[in-house]
Amino acid sequence: MKKGESTMTEIKFERAAALKAKPQDESKLGFGSIFTDYMFVMEYTEGRGWHDPVIKPYGPLPLDPSAMCLHYGQEVFEGMKAYRAADGRILLFRPEENFKRLNTSCERLCIPKVDEAFCLKALEQLVEIERDWVPHIPDASLYIRPFIIATEGKLGVHASNSYYYVVVLSPSGPYYAAGLDPVKIYVEKSYVRAVRGGMGFAKTGGNYAASLKAQEEASEQKYAQVLWLDGVERRYIEEVGAMNIFFVIGDEVVTPALQGSILPGITRKSALELMASWGLTVSERRLAIDEVAEAYDKGLLKECFGTGTAAVVSPVGELKWGDKVMEIGGGQIGPVSQRLYDTLTGIQWGKVEGPAGWSVEVCK
Amino acid sequence: MKKGESTMTEIKFERAAALKAKPQDESKLGFGSIFTDYMFVMEYTEGRGWHDPVIKPYGPLPLDPSAMCLHYGQEVFEGMKAYRAADGRILLFRPEENFKRLNTSCERLCIPKVDEAFCLKALEQLVEIERDWVPHIPDASLYIRPFIIATEGKLGVHASNSYYYVVVLSPSGPYYAAGLDPVKIYVEKSYVRAVRGGMGFAKTGGNYAASLKAQEEASEQKYAQVLWLDGVERRYIEEVGAMNIFFVIGDEVVTPALQGSILPGITRKSALELMASWGLTVSERRLAIDEVAEAYDKGLLKECFGTGTAAVVSPVGELKWGDKVMEIGGGQIGPVSQRLYDTLTGIQWGKVEGPAGWSVEVCK
Repeated sequence: MKKGESTMTEIKFERAAALKAKPQDESKLGFGSIFTDYMFVMEYTEGRGWHDPVIKPYGPLPLDPSAMCLHYGQEVFEGMKAYRAADGRILLFRPEENFKRLNTSCERLCIPKVDEAFCLKALEQLVEIERDWVPHIPDASLYIRPFIIATEGKLGVHASNSYYYVVVLSPSGPYYAAGLDPVKIYVEKSYVRAVRGGMGFAKTGGNYAASLKAQEEASEQKYAQVLWLDGVERRYIEEVGAMNIFFVIGDEVVTPALQGSILPGITRKSALELMASWGLTVSERRLAIDEVAEAYDKGLLKECFGTGTAAVVSPVGELKWGDKVMEIGGGQIGPVSQRLYDTLTGIQWGKVEGPAGWSVEVCK
Repeated sequence: MKKGESTMTEIKFERAAALKAKPQDESKLGFGSIFTDYMFVMEYTEGRGWHDPVIKPYGPLPLDPSAMCLHYGQEVFEGMKAYRAADGRILLFRPEENFKRLNTSCERLCIPKVDEAFCLKALEQLVEIERDWVPHIPDASLYIRPFIIATEGKLGVHASNSYYYVVVLSPSGPYYAAGLDPVKIYVEKSYVRAVRGGMGFAKTGGNYAASLKAQEEASEQKYAQVLWLDGVERRYIEEVGAMNIFFVIGDEVVTPALQGSILPGITRKSALELMASWGLTVSERRLAIDEVAEAYDKGLLKECFGTGTAAVVSPVGELKWGDKVMEIGGGQIGPVSQRLYDTLTGIQWGKVEGPAGWSVEVCK
């Protein structure tokens, strides 16, 4: 499908025989476990390109047991949300950024790119159909998961010649059940998430698969997530389990620079842009874990927080590095974290006017 | 399913309504693109363990669009072969090693382990049913692909609570169409396959996903595979695309030591054991690419070959490192490579008596 060719009218709609009951208690949604009535599916065939876009009832994908995604991890995904504003509008937050990143991931994984504008239109159409599924209570939203999987049924290791692009929707509560309470993070010393030259900057299965073991071990020790260090020197901070990470050191807000092994978060980017617009000193640079420890010892480590679509802003209250336990912010949420959280969620839920183009209205 | 509980009689058999036509021309099988009539499937459910083993017609697996394997790459696999001996026996080569490695992969990927003895029995039963699919011509075999995929339909990043273990069979010709002709390999400088602390030693999708881009770029330059260097110093040799790698330098046969980022190949292990038994000086150690280049300049680089289930032994005729092109063996197969190939394939096809236990007879 060439750019510009696509129109919404091309999307077929297969109506469900019956609709599911909506969740009765939105305070118990959890994350990513309930799915709406419909999904969007589009196929790719070599020589034909992306074709046959359809909105159809959510249901199993029949995959050949030899489909490449099941063996060689050729799969990419995105994560975004639809928010219900107080006046009933359904809003997306910088969705173009997600489709742009999806294509960056596609390129690394040798997956054919999608038409970003068409995918956004298709998403808007799907969300509009499912608008009643967008939660009504504060901090809950409709989580959106676009993903692409390799479907060719062959066992030779090469890029697939066929794919599914699928979008599923899941009404979800806040990602962390504990809400904005500061989380405990532990600096991972044994496992590495990704290394430069690998695929750490892409949103692809393998990066998450690599993280499961460390996450399990952290959970056993009652830590919420792990903080990843770089795979080469095992010294420079990269990111947290499902988030990018920021530190307020003295008057500087620091986050690790993107250099290939770190996911380029859209919340990260938005946080950087907002903080710069507030006149804060914001740096994207190399940041060693020992620099953080030194700042802590000098009383300069004022705040630490993660950013991500799921959690938005997640304050870190404890950072454990070997035997060293750093308690940050005295169990409270720091002023920068709080302002960012309020501003970002304010824009997302349509309460605050954000920079031009950040908020995209799907329907009223 | 606890060890010892399982018996072959537990495996249900669902007969296919009609069988497929067998390939008429076995010289045109290719690799991993034709599948037999049946597959083995077993499910895992938290609290129940592995259950409901069944041999049923090869066909689509219905997967929830949110199945974790499609998003977070929680998937592992194995590769092995069944060989037809001249006297009609169907043989496996060290299959216990594959199931042992499958469990090593499972552990890294937080997947519940399988009962290795039961899986071997189930495989033997499946191969016996499909014995007519084992090719008859030289160098062709029945490729066996056991794999495990995470099936829980949830989008939170954590280990799945349900899985499929599946075995599919594919009659296949030699992996490299060019046969034992020496291949051209290129030393990868930009991309990294895996790093220590990652999951390079596990047979899991993400490692292969990470390799696709480098492989594509190598193919564009008419190279068969890439040679991976370590992700930390970008200097030490790790492995080749789908194989482990060996160098004959002077009187020493060297292969990189296993240290977490390299796949512990069963052909690699077998080659090491065979060469040691022949009285060759065999080393598993760190090997820098500049040491190889230096040996080449001194005329000491006698042979280079890859080992793997698919190719068995694959001589490398050209190794390109930046601008330096090393021509090895003058387009011929070296004596060590040839002896290894003859011995390994001899054992696999039942022509040569191998060490005790290497050859497992499935049926006559």
